[in-house]
Amino acid sequence: MSAYRPLTEAEAIERARNIPGVFPPGAELTCREIGDGNLNLVFHIREAGKPKGIILKQALPYAKVVGESWPLTLDRARIESEALIIQGKLAPGLVPKVYEYVPELALTVMEDLSDHVIMRRGLIEGNRYPKFAGHIGEFMARTLFFTSDFGMNQQEKKIQAGRFINPELCKITEDLIFDDPYTVSPNNNYDPGIEAEAAALREDRELHREVARLRYGFLTKGQALIHGDLHTGSIFVTPESTKVIDPEFAYYGPMGFDVGAVLANLLLNAAAQGGRMADRAALRLYRAWLLETVQAVWNEFETRFRALWAEHAVDRMFRESGYLDIFLQELLQDSFGYTGCKMIRRIVGLAHVADIDGIEDPELRNRARRVALAIGTDLIKRHRKVSSIREMTEIAELHFAAKEGSPS
Amino acid sequence: MSAYRPLTEAEAIERARNIPGVFPPGAELTCREIGDGNLNLVFHIREAGKPKGIILKQALPYAKVVGESWPLTLDRARIESEALIIQGKLAPGLVPKVYEYVPELALTVMEDLSDHVIMRRGLIEGNRYPKFAGHIGEFMARTLFFTSDFGMNQQEKKIQAGRFINPELCKITEDLIFDDPYTVSPNNNYDPGIEAEAAALREDRELHREVARLRYGFLTKGQALIHGDLHTGSIFVTPESTKVIDPEFAYYGPMGFDVGAVLANLLLNAAAQGGRMADRAALRLYRAWLLETVQAVWNEFETRFRALWAEHAVDRMFRESGYLDIFLQELLQDSFGYTGCKMIRRIVGLAHVADIDGIEDPELRNRARRVALAIGTDLIKRHRKVSSIREMTEIAELHFAAKEGSPS
Repeated sequence: MSAYRPLTEAEAIERARNIPGVFPPGAELTCREIGDGNLNLVFHIREAGKPKGIILKQALPYAKVVGESWPLTLDRARIESEALIIQGKLAPGLVPKVYEYVPELALTVMEDLSDHVIMRRGLIEGNRYPKFAGHIGEFMARTLFFTSDFGMNQQEKKIQAGRFINPELCKITEDLIFDDPYTVSPNNNYDPGIEAEAAALREDRELHREVARLRYGFLTKGQALIHGDLHTGSIFVTPESTKVIDPEFAYYGPMGFDVGAVLANLLLNAAAQGGRMADRAALRLYRAWLLETVQAVWNEFETRFRALWAEHAVDRMFRESGYLDIFLQELLQDSFGYTGCKMIRRIVGLAHVADIDGIEDPELRNRARRVALAIGTDLIKRHRKVSSIREMTEIAELHFAAKEGSPS
Repeated sequence: MSAYRPLTEAEAIERARNIPGVFPPGAELTCREIGDGNLNLVFHIREAGKPKGIILKQALPYAKVVGESWPLTLDRARIESEALIIQGKLAPGLVPKVYEYVPELALTVMEDLSDHVIMRRGLIEGNRYPKFAGHIGEFMARTLFFTSDFGMNQQEKKIQAGRFINPELCKITEDLIFDDPYTVSPNNNYDPGIEAEAAALREDRELHREVARLRYGFLTKGQALIHGDLHTGSIFVTPESTKVIDPEFAYYGPMGFDVGAVLANLLLNAAAQGGRMADRAALRLYRAWLLETVQAVWNEFETRFRALWAEHAVDRMFRESGYLDIFLQELLQDSFGYTGCKMIRRIVGLAHVADIDGIEDPELRNRARRVALAIGTDLIKRHRKVSSIREMTEIAELHFAAKEGSPS
């Protein structure tokens, strides 16, 4: 990595110009750095007057979160690029196209998605994405099935797992999701108005035992090449299209961690809307859509996973023993648990979500936080006993009603 | 590996002579190749008139089992040597000392254990090893704890797991233990006299589902650097000493697979003695010792594992949540399941054990096989419900009584 240096905008333009088939020769190109500056430089390069161009994403050798800075491996750019390429093959059209990966610069050149919006932003605005559940169900079913012992050669899977050993980024998850929220930590970050609820998280031994189980799964369950950070800020959408980005946390881990990330962020938005939508009828309708989408994400995933199994399962013992039902039941349970962990960390942990932090009224903001914590805690405590995705939306509705009064 | 060639005896002697501090200069050395020729060359080099010398173990680029031959990676010599060195540091005195590892020759030079006997042989002869349970409990507790997320840095553990990715040898286990015995396979090998019992294994869907769970654990549960082949043929003993050898199957897998290997081979010997010891009082006493040893192996392991946890556990979430009891309960259950799998494969699968195959009377031999299959099947089917190691010896005693009549 000794040749590494952060690109200037002029250098980014030169590189972009040389990618075959993107810009006409001699085109007048403009560059804008649109990264948040915390982890990566992101150069958006366009031809003057054209809306869509190309993206150059370059990893920075450090991470900045809420003012803190720590060194971070550039190898994550390799992992991100290799994961994107694998995901693109397995789930065509559901990730940005990769044009080039330049290891020495930790640089990935990829499709511009500026005709899409970040899903979190779209949900905050109350938009609906009717194709999302099908798309994300397809993305997860195909990427998880075909990188697992069910859908790929089991010896190649072991070697692939070795290429995605990702200690530094896993450590971030292990700390921020599976540790800090349950103890006094300088990484935690929450409003003093929810101190009682934060203290309750720290003192709940039953909750800690269940979180410990889920932590242990994250540390040891090498099921599939998971995205590892599949929240609604890692998903670009339009009503017609879904694109999953930023798989730098990818490693061989528990499938339920990806499923849980999607579901958690839908539920966080549903909790947030209680403090955003003043019109109760509109709130009720939008929440109904969000909770339908929670169920649809699981159902679309499960349907596709079963179809892939029926056609492509490589393992005789799993096929002939009827193991799939057992597996999917345990995966559903894992997904409930990880959904809960992901909700809690976004309320009391280091990194929050704009859905909730952007609520204007401080009372409603903290009420939404309490709702999210209550749902998350319940999901974690009950995760090993559930047998249907309906139980997730029932838990959510229970806490909406209990903490907000009846929404109708 | 282009410099690889099988050593001649003369070359082995020259190498041995150059290991510092083993033989006096100019000593007259003799060499005997004592390997079984299936997987490795094993040269035993001694000074004339001295009982103890040195061992040179060289991997061969193929495996031969029951006449079949297939190519096999020489990388297993690296894995064996590195695992031995790690185990020697973690459990001093319980593995042979490694003097040298020569990668290009797939050669490990190690301590001569010819003052010990192979434990399987010792058990067949009806000997007792009163220190064995403590030693093997210590070996497993220390090697498994300190290579796990409980006892070592969790980021280093991920990197270490990458060094022990072992696809080819895992494949052997996946096929021979977790697949072949439950289907019609050319790898299976059993006496026509137990065809009915072998057919029952193939048709028992409930059994297949439980085996599928255990197979999935073997494929995905990266808990610790396990030995991977810890049967009584991989253990040298004297009444005072225990040495674990041959960790070429080592990889990051489920801890219960090692525990189960030890317990299965004690139970296989207990089943075998029903066809070996004509004196029923002697049989009762020896079996009582074997079953006490089954319990003691688990209890010694658990006691030490708890003590290591109390002193060295690295993970706050696991410590403070009281997760250890949950973990040990699940490990006991895994161990029951893997014990059952290891018993069954030794009866109907490719590689048998001399304990049972060496029974002279064909009727008693097949009776011992039926006893072993019945115990193994029960252990697998009940494994997720057990809570005490006593249940294992109770299951064994039940089937001894049912299939042999009362032993007293």
